Order: sequence, then C-alpha cells, then structure tokens
Amino acid sequence: MIIGELLNSSREAIKPLIENQDAAALLAIAQAEIAAGADYLDLNCGAFVKDEPERLAWLVRTMAAAVDQRLCLDSPNPRALAAALPLARGPVMINSISAETARYRDILPLAQEHKAKLVALCMDDAAIPTTAEARYEIGCRLVKNLQAAGIAMDDIYLDPMVQPISVSAGGAMVIFDTVQMLQSAYPGIHCVCGLSNISFGLPNRKLINRYFLAQAIACGMDSFILDPTDRQLMGCYLAARALIGEDKFCAKYLKAYRNGLFTE
Amino acid sequence: MIIGELLNSSREAIKPLIENQDAAALLAIAQAEIAAGADYLDLNCGAFVKDEPERLAWLVRTMAAAVDQRLCLDSPNPRALAAALPLARGPVMINSISAETARYRDILPLAQEHKAKLVALCMDDAAIPTTAEARYEIGCRLVKNLQAAGIAMDDIYLDPMVQPISVSAGGAMVIFDTVQMLQSAYPGIHCVCGLSNISFGLPNRKLINRYFLAQAIACGMDSFILDPTDRQLMGCYLAARALIGEDKFCAKYLKAYRNGLFTE
Repeated sequence: MIIGELLNSSREAIKPLIENQDAAALLAIAQAEIAAGADYLDLNCGAFVKDEPERLAWLVRTMAAAVDQRLCLDSPNPRALAAALPLARGPVMINSISAETARYRDILPLAQEHKAKLVALCMDDAAIPTTAEARYEIGCRLVKNLQAAGIAMDDIYLDPMVQPISVSAGGAMVIFDTVQMLQSAYPGIHCVCGLSNISFGLPNRKLINRYFLAQAIACGMDSFILDPTDRQLMGCYLAARALIGEDKFCAKYLKAYRNGLFTE
Repeated sequence: MIIGELLNSSREAIKPLIENQDAAALLAIAQAEIAAGADYLDLNCGAFVKDEPERLAWLVRTMAAAVDQRLCLDSPNPRALAAALPLARGPVMINSISAETARYRDILPLAQEHKAKLVALCMDDAAIPTTAEARYEIGCRLVKNLQAAGIAMDDIYLDPMVQPISVSAGGAMVIFDTVQMLQSAYPGIHCVCGLSNISFGLPNRKLINRYFLAQAIACGMDSFILDPTDRQLMGCYLAARALIGEDKFCAKYLKAYRNGLFTE
C-alpha cells in the first residue's frame, strides 16, 4: 500500500499553501498523488505549533469535500486528531500511535471511536531501541494490546522506525530483521515505513531510497509512506513487487512500462 | 564477491576473439573487469562444442600469464576442466558442480586435486526443483557431501538457480527463501548467482536486474556473477552493501560517489 507523503507542512512548498488556505493548489497536489497510485493521502499540519488542530481540521475538511481517496491523519497530537477525525469521510488512518504511555493512552480511544487504521511505532518511553529484537518485542506488545482493545489485526500497521544508515553500524538490517520477525510471529501483518530517513546524510539519496524500498519489499514490508509522483521510485515499487511474485504475470509492471513509467 | 562474467564464449562479441586467439582484445576486457572491481574472472568456452578443452586451456593460459586476478573456470565438462585447471596460477574456482550423479562424480576429484573453490548448483538428476524447500534440501546435501570429501565450507558457493520471474508464479521468492534457509542452517555460507536470467522476457531488464541484486543482498546472498563494467549495476551493489551494514561508515559508497560511479 502506498501512502502519499506530499501534503506535509514540514515541506517548504506546502506550509504556505496551508497557511493561505490555498485549496486549489493543495487539491492539485492531492490529485497528482492519486493519479500516480496513492492509496491514502497523508495529511500533516505539525509545523503549525499554535493552531495545529484548526489547520488539520481545515485540511481534512478540504480534502474530504473534493476527493474520494482515503486520508491518513499524521499527528501525535490528540487534540489535532480529535478535531480532524470527525471530518474525514469513510475509513481513515491515524499516523501514529506508539508504545509510549501517554501517546498510547491518548490516541487509542480516538482510533476506537473512529474505527481508524493505525500506524503503530515500535518505540516506547525508553525511546527507539537499537536492536531488532527490542523493536520486535515492542511490536508484539502493541499488537497484543491493540487487539485486546478491539483493533483488528488488518487495521494495525507496525512501523519499525527507519534511521539513517550513515549513523547506524548495522545499516538497515535492523529494519529487515524486525519485519521478518514480526511476519514470522504474525503472518500477513502490515508493516509500514517512511523511506527517506534511511539516506539522510548521504549523497544520491533517491538512489539509496529506491534500493532500500526494493529490499524492504523483499523482506516483507507491504506499506510505504513515499512520494508517488516520483516516477523512478514508483517504477522501483512495481518492479520489486513483480520480483517477489506479487504481480501475476508481471501484468502491472508491463502496463506501467507501456505507459512509460520505466527507464533503464 | 564479484565474478566478472564478460569472458564468456556465449557472448556474440567474445566468441570470435577466442576463436582468433586475440589475446590483446581479451586481456583488455579482463583489465576492464578488474579495474571495475571483479574479484574473479569467469572464463567460459562452452560455445566451442568440438574443442572446448583446448580453447579453455588456451584462455586460462593466456589470462594466467598476464593478470594476477583469480580465475573461475566455467564449464560442466570434466575434460575441459582437467585440461585448464593445471594452467591457472594460485587459487582457482570451478563453476560448477551440482548434485547430478555424473557431474558430482566427475567434478569432485578435480576440485580436490586443485584445491578449487566450487560453485555448487542446487539441482540433482531430477532437474531444478520448483520449491525453496527442495533447493534447500539439495544445498544441504551438497554441503554435507562436499565437506565429507574434504572441501572447506569457505570454498563452497551454493547457487539456488535463478529463473525468469516472467514464467514463475512466485517470482524470485524461491531464491530469497532458499538463501535465507541455507544461511539459517549454515551461518555465513557463501551463496552465489548469475543475475540476468531473472529478467528474461521482460522489458528494461537492467532495471529488474538491479532491484533483484539489491534484494538478493538483503536476503543473504554474498557473491554474484555479473558485468562489473556496468556502472549502474556496481553502484547498486555498493549501495545495497551499505544498506545491509557491510560498508563501515558507508566509506566505499562515498568513495565510489566521489569517483563518479553514481547518478540518481
């Protein structure tokens, strides 16, 4: 599954569009993400420290009125989520809950009330663990607790927390190992991540991001927060899915090729 | 480990060079492979049906006289290997043995006599199995029998037999699963493959080959028979190795970037 990442107030081009309530420009970006294959649109107003709830509510209302695509409300702020969730039409996703005590306590009731899908970060109050075993352990705890609270397995998207390979001795293996352990414990469980953090501090980041995407897909990750309008990245997604046998007769790969998505 | 694949008589450009004993042209290709990072040079004269032993012996003698790089003698023909092996200087590799009765019986003594490293194909007399479990089982059998025959673990390179994803329902998962099972059973065992068969029948083959290479590296394959002079492919190799934490501080990736190996 692809969650389009472009409508994020931390992006320089986006913040002023939200600030000025430029609905037409924001909708054009949303339409481009949808046309490129986004299953969900991530909406983030975190850069508005003072009035995130009002900003996120406006953005959700604006999108819900104009597009059918599902929305992913990207905030750790329960007030912003509470203001915006009632305005989303149809199934909605919250990005994100975690095993941090306060965050778990505040976000879970919102997910229950709105029957939301949940991105669940493999971190707790002790911050992000360095080992795959520890992230896996937190992931298992989240699955057990969320299931006990009535959240369906299919609505949980575990995020093993991508960190830059430039500062991590083991590279991305901690991500691949975490996902493979989670898939062994809960076959078919959704695993999600943002891509771009992996390449922070290195040159040719887009190239690193693509090879990481291909590897993550091979290791069992099935959902990604990314820029679907990046043609080479979406080409990688389709090629990598064909490589793991998730594209019967390579039909989607071949269709995208005929539509000019790929260059060697 | 990289085994340079260019000096192969099945390539249209290469066969006449071997036929005409154009040592200078063949050495120039060898030097290009070495400069690009080949650890071994694969030498194949299989297209010469009538006189493969004499052709392979000439090619090995020619290379051994001019380059220090290690040689990989690529033939299932014990007569060709017997003629060529004594002419290789230093450690040599045989590509390949398998669990086929006659091939195993004929090639093992050559490997023992010349203390050769061995590419070992995960297939037996019943041909290439469709499942990862069956390939894994043949791989285990090869490891046990070869070890019992005095071949060191570090000299065995198991090849799970890449087949085109265009005709295989499960895509490349059979390869990834086979390698991961072998790595679980024998941690650190070498696994090797040729890349290009994976993309047979599809457009933009080089792109598929690169994403497959990145995925295979993430799943525990450590050796590849490929064209090291393909800059984008070697860029993929270095980026993928950095991603799995096999490039401390991403030093090799950064050096290759400074040398202009990468483009986004």
